[in-house]
Amino acid sequence: MSILVVGSVAMDSVKTPFGKIDNALGGSATYFSVSASYFSPVKLVAVIGEDFPKKYLDVLKKHDIDLSGLQKVKGKTFRWKGQYTYDLNQAETLDTQLNVFAHFSPNIPEQYKKSEYVFLGNIDPELQLEVLKQVKNPKLVACDTMNYWISSKKPQLIKTLKKVDILVINEAEVRELAGESNLVKASKKIFSWGPKALVIKRGEYGALFVGRNHIFSAPAYPLEKVFDPTGAGDSFAGGFMGYLAKCRSLEDHDLRRAIVFGSVMASFNVEDFSLNKLRSLDWEKITDRFHQFKKLTHFEVLK
Amino acid sequence: MSILVVGSVAMDSVKTPFGKIDNALGGSATYFSVSASYFSPVKLVAVIGEDFPKKYLDVLKKHDIDLSGLQKVKGKTFRWKGQYTYDLNQAETLDTQLNVFAHFSPNIPEQYKKSEYVFLGNIDPELQLEVLKQVKNPKLVACDTMNYWISSKKPQLIKTLKKVDILVINEAEVRELAGESNLVKASKKIFSWGPKALVIKRGEYGALFVGRNHIFSAPAYPLEKVFDPTGAGDSFAGGFMGYLAKCRSLEDHDLRRAIVFGSVMASFNVEDFSLNKLRSLDWEKITDRFHQFKKLTHFEVLK
Repeated sequence: MSILVVGSVAMDSVKTPFGKIDNALGGSATYFSVSASYFSPVKLVAVIGEDFPKKYLDVLKKHDIDLSGLQKVKGKTFRWKGQYTYDLNQAETLDTQLNVFAHFSPNIPEQYKKSEYVFLGNIDPELQLEVLKQVKNPKLVACDTMNYWISSKKPQLIKTLKKVDILVINEAEVRELAGESNLVKASKKIFSWGPKALVIKRGEYGALFVGRNHIFSAPAYPLEKVFDPTGAGDSFAGGFMGYLAKCRSLEDHDLRRAIVFGSVMASFNVEDFSLNKLRSLDWEKITDRFHQFKKLTHFEVLK
Repeated sequence: MSILVVGSVAMDSVKTPFGKIDNALGGSATYFSVSASYFSPVKLVAVIGEDFPKKYLDVLKKHDIDLSGLQKVKGKTFRWKGQYTYDLNQAETLDTQLNVFAHFSPNIPEQYKKSEYVFLGNIDPELQLEVLKQVKNPKLVACDTMNYWISSKKPQLIKTLKKVDILVINEAEVRELAGESNLVKASKKIFSWGPKALVIKRGEYGALFVGRNHIFSAPAYPLEKVFDPTGAGDSFAGGFMGYLAKCRSLEDHDLRRAIVFGSVMASFNVEDFSLNKLRSLDWEKITDRFHQFKKLTHFEVLK
């Protein structure tokens, strides 16, 4: 089952303690799409400028991502410049040029409107709601957001959340959104606004799935080489939604597996700059690491 | 099989957003002993002053902790005063009065010297080494330490580590000790000094067991009510060592269970001030929460 994703396609310049890269392929919807494409077909809605290189379009095409909803408009593509120090947990933004993204208005192509799985990348919550108005009866809507929208457009975000099934969000942002430091209590408050579950991203500490009746915890994979964390959260969301769309189930055991597949895709993504690692995977590599996660977390109860 | 523990017995005054307590029972060896006592007999080596209340001794006695090695000397008991803000991850020390602990020299009673399981609480690494010189052929030596010793006595600490099997340590302290931010690389460096494994405590994110050939990750239990984190790391170590001494095995599946039992004991400990919760447990409550940890982390691989 295919997934509709709306978000940013960007060109990133990133510096980490291990190297640097300029004007590389980036953007939340890009990482999400390529990650999810290993599981399910993806339909992309985003905007690029006239300067967007053909070779980057070819990356998306190679992953069979439907680009009918990728608008190309006059001007330059969204650009982000950032750097990480040794702890690699926190990106420092050096420069943001919204360019064509500043006037992005997501137009959902007719053939996308029956999408059953929808992922609203981290864009203005009012635009996220506009997308949902154009989609007919989705089976599952997941949504990302960020501190910028929480502080500047909280009422609009809460309005959007009414129509969202799963909120995928960073740990610090859960606390900020709910005004509550305890994650269990913060999740309950957010449930009262609409979402049935939260996926809480904790960077190098992994992820929590908080449903109304149960919690599942998955660690991040302890890698010896973490190269560039950019796009880890979006790769995670791609693996998570990709698996759910593939198995067409929302049962507890599949939600748990989806969280692990998200963790698998994030763990690959951080091993190289841009999408360099993420583009080079296959199903065998993905299931191999899934089994590594099992070894990492498995224990037996007492007989 | 009994466990020998050396460390501090203290009186703590603690303030959290949820309340305060004065001159309560505390200290690393106290938390360790009571936690471990649910699994195995404990022999305590520590020092108290003349002011140490009988009711606190009674707590230790009620848990059948062998107090032949608890020296009572002239002066006042070690006191610590600290507070936590809402994030509860970092204690702020307001006052430390070493008192009788300043001249603590661990004397191991004759009947303790054949102990097979030894836990060196967070004391001066030179004193930790003195303890090991008095003990005959222990089967397993685990050791805690802290940033204070890493910065002031690193050569002495490394000398002690030669004789330690498992180093139980906070995440930030692993990085500081090894001078390496990546935990996998940092662990390898520490292995070269002697220890065969590390237990890395990550506070609200749980714990990692890093062996020479495998890694096991356990989350912390996501509690709705975290009251006071004081002693969580020592309660963890008590559950970990307690289970290993109980099962008399160092096999992979038992090391994994030991990490989970450590996490179980830490999760109980933070639910109330001082040892109030830790003292009130029984085997049924402990195994119930062990099963909750299984539910929290379990997922099935694809068929």
